[in-house]
Amino acid sequence: MKVKPKLFFGLPKGSLQEATIEKMGKAGFNISVSNRSYIPYVDDEEMEIRMIRAQEISRYVELGYLDSGITGYDWIMENSSSVHEVGEFQFSKATRQPSRWVLAVPEESKIKTVHDLAGKRIATEVVNLTKKYLRKHKVKAEVEFSLGATEVKARELVDAIVEITETGPSLRANKLRIVDTVLVSTPRLIANHKAWKDPWKRRKIETLALLLRGALEAESKVGLKMNIAEKNLKALLESLPALRRPTISGLSQPGWVAVETIIDEHIVRELIPQLKAAGAEGIIEYPLNKVVY
Amino acid sequence: MKVKPKLFFGLPKGSLQEATIEKMGKAGFNISVSNRSYIPYVDDEEMEIRMIRAQEISRYVELGYLDSGITGYDWIMENSSSVHEVGEFQFSKATRQPSRWVLAVPEESKIKTVHDLAGKRIATEVVNLTKKYLRKHKVKAEVEFSLGATEVKARELVDAIVEITETGPSLRANKLRIVDTVLVSTPRLIANHKAWKDPWKRRKIETLALLLRGALEAESKVGLKMNIAEKNLKALLESLPALRRPTISGLSQPGWVAVETIIDEHIVRELIPQLKAAGAEGIIEYPLNKVVY
Amino acid sequence: MKVKPKLFFGLPKGSLQEATIEKMGKAGFNISVSNRSYIPYVDDEEMEIRMIRAQEISRYVELGYLDSGITGYDWIMENSSSVHEVGEFQFSKATRQPSRWVLAVPEESKIKTVHDLAGKRIATEVVNLTKKYLRKHKVKAEVEFSLGATEVKARELVDAIVEITETGPSLRANKLRIVDTVLVSTPRLIANHKAWKDPWKRRKIETLALLLRGALEAESKVGLKMNIAEKNLKALLESLPALRRPTISGLSQPGWVAVETIIDEHIVRELIPQLKAAGAEGIIEYPLNKVVY
Amino acid sequence: MKVKPKLFFGLPKGSLQEATIEKMGKAGFNISVSNRSYIPYVDDEEMEIRMIRAQEISRYVELGYLDSGITGYDWIMENSSSVHEVGEFQFSKATRQPSRWVLAVPEESKIKTVHDLAGKRIATEVVNLTKKYLRKHKVKAEVEFSLGATEVKARELVDAIVEITETGPSLRANKLRIVDTVLVSTPRLIANHKAWKDPWKRRKIETLALLLRGALEAESKVGLKMNIAEKNLKALLESLPALRRPTISGLSQPGWVAVETIIDEHIVRELIPQLKAAGAEGIIEYPLNKVVY
Amino acid sequence: MKVKPKLFFGLPKGSLQEATIEKMGKAGFNISVSNRSYIPYVDDEEMEIRMIRAQEISRYVELGYLDSGITGYDWIMENSSSVHEVGEFQFSKATRQPSRWVLAVPEESKIKTVHDLAGKRIATEVVNLTKKYLRKHKVKAEVEFSLGATEVKARELVDAIVEITETGPSLRANKLRIVDTVLVSTPRLIANHKAWKDPWKRRKIETLALLLRGALEAESKVGLKMNIAEKNLKALLESLPALRRPTISGLSQPGWVAVETIIDEHIVRELIPQLKAAGAEGIIEYPLNKVVY
Amino acid sequence: MKVKPKLFFGLPKGSLQEATIEKMGKAGFNISVSNRSYIPYVDDEEMEIRMIRAQEISRYVELGYLDSGITGYDWIMENSSSVHEVGEFQFSKATRQPSRWVLAVPEESKIKTVHDLAGKRIATEVVNLTKKYLRKHKVKAEVEFSLGATEVKARELVDAIVEITETGPSLRANKLRIVDTVLVSTPRLIANHKAWKDPWKRRKIETLALLLRGALEAESKVGLKMNIAEKNLKALLESLPALRRPTISGLSQPGWVAVETIIDEHIVRELIPQLKAAGAEGIIEYPLNKVVY
Repeated sequence: MKVKPKLFFGLPKGSLQEATIEKMGKAGFNISVSNRSYIPYVDDEEMEIRMIRAQEISRYVELGYLDSGITGYDWIMENSSSVHEVGEFQFSKATRQPSRWVLAVPEESKIKTVHDLAGKRIATEVVNLTKKYLRKHKVKAEVEFSLGATEVKARELVDAIVEITETGPSLRANKLRIVDTVLVSTPRLIANHKAWKDPWKRRKIETLALLLRGALEAESKVGLKMNIAEKNLKALLESLPALRRPTISGLSQPGWVAVETIIDEHIVRELIPQLKAAGAEGIIEYPLNKVVY
Repeated sequence: MKVKPKLFFGLPKGSLQEATIEKMGKAGFNISVSNRSYIPYVDDEEMEIRMIRAQEISRYVELGYLDSGITGYDWIMENSSSVHEVGEFQFSKATRQPSRWVLAVPEESKIKTVHDLAGKRIATEVVNLTKKYLRKHKVKAEVEFSLGATEVKARELVDAIVEITETGPSLRANKLRIVDTVLVSTPRLIANHKAWKDPWKRRKIETLALLLRGALEAESKVGLKMNIAEKNLKALLESLPALRRPTISGLSQPGWVAVETIIDEHIVRELIPQLKAAGAEGIIEYPLNKVVY
Repeated sequence: MKVKPKLFFGLPKGSLQEATIEKMGKAGFNISVSNRSYIPYVDDEEMEIRMIRAQEISRYVELGYLDSGITGYDWIMENSSSVHEVGEFQFSKATRQPSRWVLAVPEESKIKTVHDLAGKRIATEVVNLTKKYLRKHKVKAEVEFSLGATEVKARELVDAIVEITETGPSLRANKLRIVDTVLVSTPRLIANHKAWKDPWKRRKIETLALLLRGALEAESKVGLKMNIAEKNLKALLESLPALRRPTISGLSQPGWVAVETIIDEHIVRELIPQLKAAGAEGIIEYPLNKVVY
Repeated sequence: MKVKPKLFFGLPKGSLQEATIEKMGKAGFNISVSNRSYIPYVDDEEMEIRMIRAQEISRYVELGYLDSGITGYDWIMENSSSVHEVGEFQFSKATRQPSRWVLAVPEESKIKTVHDLAGKRIATEVVNLTKKYLRKHKVKAEVEFSLGATEVKARELVDAIVEITETGPSLRANKLRIVDTVLVSTPRLIANHKAWKDPWKRRKIETLALLLRGALEAESKVGLKMNIAEKNLKALLESLPALRRPTISGLSQPGWVAVETIIDEHIVRELIPQLKAAGAEGIIEYPLNKVVY
Repeated sequence: MKVKPKLFFGLPKGSLQEATIEKMGKAGFNISVSNRSYIPYVDDEEMEIRMIRAQEISRYVELGYLDSGITGYDWIMENSSSVHEVGEFQFSKATRQPSRWVLAVPEESKIKTVHDLAGKRIATEVVNLTKKYLRKHKVKAEVEFSLGATEVKARELVDAIVEITETGPSLRANKLRIVDTVLVSTPRLIANHKAWKDPWKRRKIETLALLLRGALEAESKVGLKMNIAEKNLKALLESLPALRRPTISGLSQPGWVAVETIIDEHIVRELIPQLKAAGAEGIIEYPLNKVVY
Repeated sequence: MKVKPKLFFGLPKGSLQEATIEKMGKAGFNISVSNRSYIPYVDDEEMEIRMIRAQEISRYVELGYLDSGITGYDWIMENSSSVHEVGEFQFSKATRQPSRWVLAVPEESKIKTVHDLAGKRIATEVVNLTKKYLRKHKVKAEVEFSLGATEVKARELVDAIVEITETGPSLRANKLRIVDTVLVSTPRLIANHKAWKDPWKRRKIETLALLLRGALEAESKVGLKMNIAEKNLKALLESLPALRRPTISGLSQPGWVAVETIIDEHIVRELIPQLKAAGAEGIIEYPLNKVVY
């Protein structure tokens, strides 16, 4: 009776937490985390959420303690976790740029390339990634674990660091120079291999991926509606390929039609002046929750 | 000249304040409360808002100092206020669950039912509700007023407490056990009897109720739009009763129609995969401000 | 190659900052200001934003260090800056009222009109505006610069002050009486004269003005959609002139049409009950991002 | 064995909490309250502290749930608690003034004395105190319980209020006029009658009172030390009666003595210039933890 | 010329930071840390302070990047650092208790002793300490690194944890049971072996230790002064061994002496009533900055 | 009768406020400033405090609105105020260094000396000081008023700035180079010329100066007490000139004396090891409130 299936799903605590929960909410899964809570409430009886550090999620998905989860590509690699990667997502609206782990040294250091690291000491939170990187370049150096404030060590305590560039301002403030990029990382939806083979779980995860993608897609899209005289319609559509496959509906006012479409928000600022010039009237832009093609 | 009629309207200070003001804003009444203010600004010249503790609103509505107001069913009962109840509303999106006043005792207490309370001492903020409850069960016990942190008293200072379950975590943290539910409460829009007989005031209150309901309704609904080939339309509609009474409009692209409807947000996550399977394309979900049937 | 043109654009730091950046975002220019930063990030490669105190923006636009910017009319006047005024905007949703600089004195002061100021001492942040105001009224008085907390000086340290009424509560708290209005001010989009003659820059500024206006317009508008029987349509439209130029589209349900329009948000609360009375069904209100006529 | 006696001691939560705990610490009882905690830690195995609202402490001391506690005279009176009053303390250094409960009305009210209250409605947190006060003046009026923000009600919802003057600024801000003082209150150390008859508990409470008094005394005293030529000593002591009973010790430097005494801090600012004038040298002032005569 | 010797000294960032810097200040070394700073200012030209995580200090002292530093015994052990231990200090006034690393399991777990861990998985921040502990008990189990919120994992993700008991409330909140103590730890002042052999550095470190000890000693001591009649002096001293080796000086008042001594603050609350009983008058207690025997 | 004389005294709002009020409290004048208040409470009926921006105090002292006040030397100079300077004080314990106004330019600027400023534009908050400085060096340049965030303008909007070095980190963060020092400033106690001639006011101001100096002096001093065998006393005193004019009192223990003195806190860390070496025992250091020679 009671034995409804459940999906155990891991979300990252800490810096990614707020953004991830917001996106999950936009996808239709409302999560409320009480203070310091490991087990948040989600309004879906088929899911159990666990808040775990991004660093550890892939490990627990691999072991099967979690069926699925969201974490960074960097930590999947650092942990060498064998998991199924369902998809790649980008959560930060501000820049929509992936995060980068870089090799950095003091501005005045003599180290110019990875090869100058031979025999040096490197501090980093991603010890395994750094060792792989060094092996790839056939460089022998000492790598030590450092958690937090790694960038202040580069001048006195070690010779180089591998640090995430979201600390770019911190790199600058500590007068460090980037030597090379070690890894580019984005958030990933991952699944335990066995869970992925379970049809119920797989469908649940795929639906979540579909909705999450629809919500993210909607963040960068807007709805656009306008009225135009029928005689101007063709010119409008030809000259503006951005209005791809619009919905055109008749108006009660003879000779006029309503044109409606979904476009990238970032082209609105170029498009609206052009639409006005082409004879469009009553242009309105409205927000979207989800866009699923 | 100047003697425009005004509706004096009470809103609850404190824990419900933020949610109530947000909903009033969604209903179209923008309220700004400066710090500690009893008389907030509202952008409606026909209303005067007063911020009063939820505990007291029904009393002042009954006495006629206020024409109408929003407060909890619990406090209307506690005060035995004779007021007209216009409607029931639920403000908290997170759970959409009513609050419950419960009788609780220490986990290790011998009290198992209300009848074990005979001769005991009970601390509560709702002294009258508790006395009514005891009378109903024909139990004689001492009830004392307690304001705040009632749950810490249950172990040493009294034998039982009647407390609101929104302090559930606090109940757990204090190792208390729920014995019974004393009252289930939701927010209510109430009116003074005389004000309700005044046609202008009644219409004003009814409009407010209509808009508030429209705004709350909209919180759990979304707009959904999609394109579908005409040949697939019938199957789509038959198989998906959730798409009740959609707006179907012709598209300029022959053989295709646009389907638009309003649905409960919480079924979106099940519906979208089904829509895709049924041949829908370009599915978009958009937010609503109000829904009035 | 690289020499893409750039528009140097000044935004006001401080009290107007948050509102201005929010409106710019709604207009389609997403700006992120790191803490205390003078050069924020904007997601438009053709713009460079500078955050400068509202008091100084017109000066740097006049000198050409900035091509354009947003600042208050008061500071343009105070600085006697020769700039091109592109348009007037109102950012504060709460009240949509302009700010006023007023002449104020202690409640018990004998000063009743500007003419009673002869030989007195006035403290103000807007020394030049105050001097112009006195010259206009042919009054000779001493004007001294005062920055911040000017209102506390009016009782002991000077005879009168010229202060902005957004400090209204502060005026009251200090028991000051308003004698006269010195200047009414609203935010303005301004441009350097030379930049305004440059076709690329002018078009960029005009587009920004168009989008900003569209975003502000949308804040006070909503979309409204409803279904109505065709036979009731004419009566509905005649009796409700607010539904100016609606989009009317046919429904698949015979005898019914969908009516859609954009209206002022503040009339929604009167309109919806009337629409229901006129036979409208399934009324929904939805939010808008931009409205461009 | 284990049955060491314990003193159950109540301290007030809320506005008095921080000051009370600080003074207890100065008296030698270090208390640490974790967030929202009812049972704080105290570094004395013979005591158990309970944090309870000031309003309720006297009730639980009377009932014997607590042996002793600190609360305001106002709440002892409001609750008509039969407890032993051990002593009066004043905790607030800033002003060292007792708090006053006053009867207040709107500035423009016609109520000038208590006798004008006949037939009126009064809101207050101290319903019993107010009724006693009215009985004493043979005035019949309705008294209703009001918790928090009472002062905003005086203008519209009731005719008068009885409120504590620590809300003086709030009285002014709400334009209220004080009509009469209802009660003057200071913090009191109280004991349960039975606990006071238990020798161990009584000694424990008396020691606590002694140390608390010593700590409070020390807050307004300082130690003062100076050197003076023996020939000037008599004149110094005669002219400065504030130097009551100083410790005078010989110095190795012939003809000089060291004078040391304890004085009220607030006379230091007058005394030091006089001491210098009388020939004192090397004057130092040092802080005290406790002063017990 | 300029080549003054410097002592490179590491202080722990994070939870111990505030207490450590306060104690250093009491010892006479005033340190000011600007926000997020790695190199704080210290008012001693012979020292350079580095703020580093407690976890890492012993490593950098061992390597010689730092001459000396303060860190916990736990991290010295975890890192197996070969350093000279100069002394043990206890910084937290509240309890003066060392911190403990404990093995904990869910309350309902079948694990009762360390031996039940065979074949289980343990999460901890101190992987090496835990492995040593297991080896000592000849138990084979898997140990995995966990950083932060380890206690939430014990129920679902691992079988047991090794965590610091300062998270005692967190252990309780997560319903964990302590099985055994793995390590008891206190703060230590450590030195690099080579630095300890350098006479200048060693003297500098020893002076710091002396002053730090003097400051910590003073925290739990107070000065006590009183006057007593000579005839009562002997009885006083005999009956009160706590007044060990007091300074007794003659007073100008014949037959009276002043008695002054340094005692433990925590016995003051017992001693003062006894002193009064023995005839002491004018008892004052005053605070101390340092006590060096 | 009532016309007690009062001293009107100005204290600086803003960055200096907290330190100034703390020092006034140490001097014996306890001031409590409610939020945003211009007229704080002081526990001296002979004083009226006004909180005014440091920039303006000297102006109002000169005009006689205030009798006396504390402000920076920089603002006295900037305003060219004719006031009596009573004394110089240094409030900031951290560094005890005066603040400096410096001429700064971008690191890469060609401006190397003040003479390179000819024809340039300089932004500063101290327009008059900067003009005086330019005149002194016979350089003609444009000086414009800039309030706040001046350092960000140096790169784009002006050629140089004159800014206070307490913004040193800000100078560095903006990559500015210091070219010259324009003015060194410390806090000053100033008096209106007429008030200084009034005997009552002058005595009041001088007493305040005496107590303030005594309190500041005490901040950098401590009391030191120790016991030593009489035979070692002479050697101790000769070898340690820092123990200038100690109080030496006989002890009851034959052959031993108590030595007590006041010394600079910053030499304690060198002195205590030397005292121990010279045979001192039971060394204690205690804090001081005031030191008046």
